[in-house]
Amino acid sequence: MTDDPLVIFTPSGKRGRFAPGTPVLTAARQLGVDLDSVCGGRGICSKCQITPGYGEFPKHGVTVSEGALSEWNEVEARYDRIRGLKEGRRLGCQAKVCGDVVIDVPPESQVHRQVIRKSATVRDITMDPATHAYYVEVVEPDMHEPSGDFQRLCDALRDQWQIEGLEADASLLGKLQPVLRKGEWKVTVAIHRDHRNKPRVIDIWPGFWEGRLYGLAIDLGSTTIAAHLCDLRNGNVLASSGLMNPQIRFGEDLMSRVSYAMMNPGGDREMTNAVRTAINGLAQAIATEAHVDPGQIVETVFVCNPVMHHLLLGIDPVELGQAPFALATSESLSLAARDLDLTAIHRNARVYVLPCIAGHVGADCAAVALSEEPNKSEDMVLIVDVGTNAEILLGNKDRVLACSSPTGPAFEGAQISAGQRAAPGAIERVEIDPATKEPRFRVIGCDLWSTDEGFAEATAQTGITGICGSGIIEVVAEMRMAGILDAGGLIGSAEQVGTARCVATGRTNAYVLHDGTAAGGPLITVTQGDIRAIQLAKSALYAGARLLMDELNIDKVDRVVLAGAFGAHISPKHAMVLGMIPDCPLDKVTSAGNAAGTGARIALSNIASRAAIEEEVGRIYKVETAIEPRFQEHFVAANAIPHATAPFPELAAIMTLPDVSFNTAGSGAEGGRRRRKG
Amino acid sequence: MTDDPLVIFTPSGKRGRFAPGTPVLTAARQLGVDLDSVCGGRGICSKCQITPGYGEFPKHGVTVSEGALSEWNEVEARYDRIRGLKEGRRLGCQAKVCGDVVIDVPPESQVHRQVIRKSATVRDITMDPATHAYYVEVVEPDMHEPSGDFQRLCDALRDQWQIEGLEADASLLGKLQPVLRKGEWKVTVAIHRDHRNKPRVIDIWPGFWEGRLYGLAIDLGSTTIAAHLCDLRNGNVLASSGLMNPQIRFGEDLMSRVSYAMMNPGGDREMTNAVRTAINGLAQAIATEAHVDPGQIVETVFVCNPVMHHLLLGIDPVELGQAPFALATSESLSLAARDLDLTAIHRNARVYVLPCIAGHVGADCAAVALSEEPNKSEDMVLIVDVGTNAEILLGNKDRVLACSSPTGPAFEGAQISAGQRAAPGAIERVEIDPATKEPRFRVIGCDLWSTDEGFAEATAQTGITGICGSGIIEVVAEMRMAGILDAGGLIGSAEQVGTARCVATGRTNAYVLHDGTAAGGPLITVTQGDIRAIQLAKSALYAGARLLMDELNIDKVDRVVLAGAFGAHISPKHAMVLGMIPDCPLDKVTSAGNAAGTGARIALSNIASRAAIEEEVGRIYKVETAIEPRFQEHFVAANAIPHATAPFPELAAIMTLPDVSFNTAGSGAEGGRRRRKG
Repeated sequence: MTDDPLVIFTPSGKRGRFAPGTPVLTAARQLGVDLDSVCGGRGICSKCQITPGYGEFPKHGVTVSEGALSEWNEVEARYDRIRGLKEGRRLGCQAKVCGDVVIDVPPESQVHRQVIRKSATVRDITMDPATHAYYVEVVEPDMHEPSGDFQRLCDALRDQWQIEGLEADASLLGKLQPVLRKGEWKVTVAIHRDHRNKPRVIDIWPGFWEGRLYGLAIDLGSTTIAAHLCDLRNGNVLASSGLMNPQIRFGEDLMSRVSYAMMNPGGDREMTNAVRTAINGLAQAIATEAHVDPGQIVETVFVCNPVMHHLLLGIDPVELGQAPFALATSESLSLAARDLDLTAIHRNARVYVLPCIAGHVGADCAAVALSEEPNKSEDMVLIVDVGTNAEILLGNKDRVLACSSPTGPAFEGAQISAGQRAAPGAIERVEIDPATKEPRFRVIGCDLWSTDEGFAEATAQTGITGICGSGIIEVVAEMRMAGILDAGGLIGSAEQVGTARCVATGRTNAYVLHDGTAAGGPLITVTQGDIRAIQLAKSALYAGARLLMDELNIDKVDRVVLAGAFGAHISPKHAMVLGMIPDCPLDKVTSAGNAAGTGARIALSNIASRAAIEEEVGRIYKVETAIEPRFQEHFVAANAIPHATAPFPELAAIMTLPDVSFNTAGSGAEGGRRRRKG
Repeated sequence: MTDDPLVIFTPSGKRGRFAPGTPVLTAARQLGVDLDSVCGGRGICSKCQITPGYGEFPKHGVTVSEGALSEWNEVEARYDRIRGLKEGRRLGCQAKVCGDVVIDVPPESQVHRQVIRKSATVRDITMDPATHAYYVEVVEPDMHEPSGDFQRLCDALRDQWQIEGLEADASLLGKLQPVLRKGEWKVTVAIHRDHRNKPRVIDIWPGFWEGRLYGLAIDLGSTTIAAHLCDLRNGNVLASSGLMNPQIRFGEDLMSRVSYAMMNPGGDREMTNAVRTAINGLAQAIATEAHVDPGQIVETVFVCNPVMHHLLLGIDPVELGQAPFALATSESLSLAARDLDLTAIHRNARVYVLPCIAGHVGADCAAVALSEEPNKSEDMVLIVDVGTNAEILLGNKDRVLACSSPTGPAFEGAQISAGQRAAPGAIERVEIDPATKEPRFRVIGCDLWSTDEGFAEATAQTGITGICGSGIIEVVAEMRMAGILDAGGLIGSAEQVGTARCVATGRTNAYVLHDGTAAGGPLITVTQGDIRAIQLAKSALYAGARLLMDELNIDKVDRVVLAGAFGAHISPKHAMVLGMIPDCPLDKVTSAGNAAGTGARIALSNIASRAAIEEEVGRIYKVETAIEPRFQEHFVAANAIPHATAPFPELAAIMTLPDVSFNTAGSGAEGGRRRRKG
């Protein structure tokens, strides 16, 4: 046996000796080398391409001669003629081992190639989606041994792909017979495995099917619905798109939608229909954008908060609006897309919904946990998913806690006098000179600062239309840093601050960020009401984080991750000045982008990740902010900017905030309180 | 321990000693005594009623004192007050063992009571349907231990009923929360187990639900659709109803429907829609007849031939019309009723379709095998299910064979000049005097013979309208016995036979069975064409049976079972004279009635029977008549009445058929051949 040729695979380094004449694909399979094949070694699919190396390999201790592999055969020649084989490539199922050889498996021939790289957690997601295509050769019917075509297909999948216990809908049984005959008993079958590993036929095509299977990862938020269209073979994102959640017309935030369902019989059904229609439209649009047949979208993964979760599933969310906030179902779900009226995609498409953590902590938070993996963190990490409802995770490899906090939509630019969604023309970055109190800013769609030459021309197209969420955070923090705003959140008057940009508006003051009125544009100011709205939002966020820290009995965290579509745009320094997040070294505050969406993509790309997050969700300890008396205490203490009592030593080390106070009559605070909404 | 009271249950005879204070239900469960309980011993459902016996029981060796059971408690008193407890009855969950006692479990308290008694096979079917109702008490939600209501329902069913891995549709999740709250966390859940034993929620009701669950056993034939509405608790048939298969308008027999599908694009879909609509109508009608809410029909079992099977499932039957007669799927199916558009019944109702045996031998034949159990027969039994397509089973406990034979609809009265379906006014019994050649007959709806006094008055209402299937068989056999018909199937002329009832019709003769023309009624004759149609049908039947006998290398069978809705009405003697069935002692020819329908009821009543028939179908050896050259030989030889070559010794022992021959010119035979349809 030791005389048999030695085969060494790279990059894995796996090696073994094989009898001369062994196909490379067979050798790879026996060694557990990750080499793809859809047709099962029949020279049809060309997925098993490999690159043999010739010459001296001192590292591996072998010399590879020219005749190490069998000569090109007819199958390879035909493939090369018709589709072209890259220089130096061979088909692993055709090339046979003749002598010692080093075989490189290029990335595109690896089934489980890494597609989603998470630098923060040094983790790679490998492709292993729930739906795969399999090429099979089915035994023809025999009158003397009668059996159904479906049973013979099952036998073929069992024998050729080790798939057992296959199920199929009646509608597929109707399609089976003509397809088997058209393909002359050779067919490609798309099979989905649910999270209990139960295989089910999604579709069947005659012969070797060249088409692609696609999946949608959908982050179904209260305000926006964001979708990624992914190629289920290699994980590539072909298009990303989003639209406003049409449920907004029933209520801006979650509780107003729950109220709508409570007050209007059938209101839940209306909202369910609205969101399902929107998802169908989004699926259609994203497929069109990517030039993909929406009928080839065979899977959808949803992440969403509990209220959206229930409304998507057609469950009245009324119980989520009142203690004890009972979910109808908390575990993950594997459903037929048509049961959710998702008719724009493949008619047998499947839906996977991540598990919810608690009545206020949804599948979106589970997706963040899947993406950011606090449960594998060595240091104590605080993950904040900023949105209309903030989801907060705190923990490390020993223990993870979760809660949600009702921040309201201020961080998204809503309830802010000049607030707007992030779109070209919106102010997203702000700096205020501490001496002159003069601002400069940048708007989305333009790289120049407002004080740079050519800014007016560059923004002539979009105009300067308002302030988006990240801009709001920056301008409020900058106002505090420049002494325009005191720790209590009061804007000083023109006299107190020493700038005409502070203007009186009734009993309070406002800061003029941009006056475009001369050119027919808007007057963009930050009002005392805006400050109060931001204070409420940031206090809720901080109080939620603080509550989890209390539970772990800690006073500081090692690092902070800002998540959410909007989290990527938040300046850590300004967030810290505002006191949105607990004190922490600035270089330890990072952004994870839309971590919930990333979690959805991970669940779409890798079936094992579904089992992993289902298990982890059971271990996460849930804190219910609504019934925790200390939440209110923390909320009140967090109202000051950055905080009434917490020392914020890391922030103090890098800057000193002006010690100003404009609270001479208390009128500002009163004004703020009047604006507060319940 | 031996001092503990002795508890003896009747009728099972099971006995054991139990600590004083043990509830009778607990003792029954520990001994494996079949004592029902829906509420799990909470004194709510009253299903566990028992009758204690007092006094001397020499047979059991015990004396039961008055104080052998605890006194009536409050629960029993309240139950008796509100609903009344039968004299001598106790609730098994409330009555506690205090001394030696004999406990009788009345039939209505047995879960697995016997409901379908089959005297032929000395077998009883016990009630154990796939769908059961369970009463459970669910833990209330707790904010500090958040979990979904559905998960807590699953936990309750696991703890209280040992049901694991429960699934539910999204639509039920939407219903769950209000029902749990209305029932104050006590609910009744209907759970269906499919043939892979996977439990699924069908419906949920607040509190202890008093309602009943119903099932439909449907025999979906080419010509008629017959349904039994059964109470899933006790197996009672509440109503039986049938209607014509509306697909008849697309073709009288199966092959003409397959042709319709082949010739008309979308024709299969038309036929699928027609039959599904008809089934919905039948379900609605049968429920109305039984005063039952069709929404409480939670299960349907279908038996049908392969073409009807495919058309029901929405599969184009085209492959069944040509060799190799490949079924799309042969195994049993467990489906959602709504996937078959069966919307008249419960929206989560389940459908079970029995397995098919081969491309020409369907689930109806499997149902006959389930009902008649040839695989358990000690003697060699031939089972013939007479219909438009005859299914034939032959075998014993060692081996069972099956085939189907295309008899055509002659036995059902179609293609017969005076033929009609079995309905009031149809001639069903015939006798012909061998001396006078005069007939007498009986019609459906009247017990008198036509020669009896008062017959005219008794039949004035219905009239005498035609001849049904059993009447056709009798009149043809009687004509042969009376010497009106020769062995070749020719009707003699008036001169040859010596009766004016033989009338010339062109080149052939006809026999006048009834002349109602004087009273404005029909002239009912048996024509040479009718004889040819019956000869074709009976030859096909006999040839199929004979082919199976060849395969087993036997020349005679021990007994014959005539099945089919119409089988019950066939006179064994006349069938034998005709040569429909092989020679056999007459007392060994029995009728099984609608055995396919009985098989459907068995599968509806007992989930284990589904697994049993699925296994048995795999063992049955299939013979394909269409490709077996000897079938044609047997068919030709069987054309004579009773047979050209087979001796029929048993028949000869009881009668001698007249040795007549009317084939002087061959004209009759030619005439007959011209009428034969391909």
